Amino acid sequence: MSNTPSIQGYTYGSGAVARSPVTPSDFELMKKNVLFGDEDVKYLRLSQGIVEDQVEAILDVWYGFVGSTPHLLASFAGKGDGKPLGDYLGGVRGRFGRWILDTARAEYDQTWLDYQHEIGLRHHRTKKNRTDGAASTAIVPFRDLFLLIFPVTFTLKPFLAKKGNSTAEVEKMYGAWVKSCLLQVTLWSHPYVKDGDF
Amino acid sequence: MSNTPSIQGYTYGSGAVARSPVTPSDFELMKKNVLFGDEDVKYLRLSQGIVEDQVEAILDVWYGFVGSTPHLLASFAGKGDGKPLGDYLGGVRGRFGRWILDTARAEYDQTWLDYQHEIGLRHHRTKKNRTDGAASTAIVPFRDLFLLIFPVTFTLKPFLAKKGNSTAEVEKMYGAWVKSCLLQVTLWSHPYVKDGDF
Repeated sequence: MSNTPSIQGYTYGSGAVARSPVTPSDFELMKKNVLFGDEDVKYLRLSQGIVEDQVEAILDVWYGFVGSTPHLLASFAGKGDGKPLGDYLGGVRGRFGRWILDTARAEYDQTWLDYQHEIGLRHHRTKKNRTDGAASTAIVPFRDLFLLIFPVTFTLKPFLAKKGNSTAEVEKMYGAWVKSCLLQVTLWSHPYVKDGDF
Repeated sequence: MSNTPSIQGYTYGSGAVARSPVTPSDFELMKKNVLFGDEDVKYLRLSQGIVEDQVEAILDVWYGFVGSTPHLLASFAGKGDGKPLGDYLGGVRGRFGRWILDTARAEYDQTWLDYQHEIGLRHHRTKKNRTDGAASTAIVPFRDLFLLIFPVTFTLKPFLAKKGNSTAEVEKMYGAWVKSCLLQVTLWSHPYVKDGDF
């Protein structure tokens, strides 16, 4: 998965991605906080085969929500005129689809950790817009980051249930996704947090 | 609930609490992000009657988790010797119990918003330890805040199910609690986030 030149700006595993300021041992402690264990890895990987042919349909739902919520859409709109930027939305969409697969693949190693930091920088004013050359707003506000975990995972659940898995399996996949999102958005928050407070 | 002199340091609704930097209109947008609506208020209030006589048992579970997780317990331990501070743990516990009831009461008005900011300051280095005069660590690290939403709500679920409500009702109460916690911890994060990035 580290060589996917066809996705614009997807630099996972490449030399363009800096080392995460969060160490693997920090991350191990973070996993304990959220009760993330081997069973979650197992159920994320079970979800991989379920979501991989539904990625575009899932993105349609998520983009539908963002697109119908003006203050969220603003992060993908022109800084001056507030009009949605189609190229920017499209560029992000390609990487967002791959994010679904990378989350489900659950290889949460150093390379993955580094790329989570890159994702954080691209939400933060440090690197927002740069990947797509977009003339959009300066930052995705911090207050929008964690709250979106609920709609993203809640609307994912019906897709997890579409391939005949038991209710118990769907619940475990859902729980693993929620935990993974809490871990990831915590990592993404690093550039937003004051020095020494993370 | 604004007059509860018996709980040490519980200043909800008092003049000792400053105005939240997050306005009610900001908060309305935050509610949209997390899909928090009238139905969530209804199910939080349904949970009120269910949890009110189980507060100590719920706190036993949560304290058991923190107490058995050294890097979490460290936030309640002596700065020098790393030994748990009983008075500090006890003082926080009283307010934590009241937090359960305030969350379930779901009167998320200006007074509540202001107190969420106060709770954030007390986790952050701005005011940590001050309420209880504790000689503990300088800050609850940011990376511990959101991740704890999972164990806190996941272990709450069996308590929500103890009074004979249907599975559907328990799920709706659980969902409302998760959303409320995401909203609250986002508000608590304000002192941790760089100026202008919230």
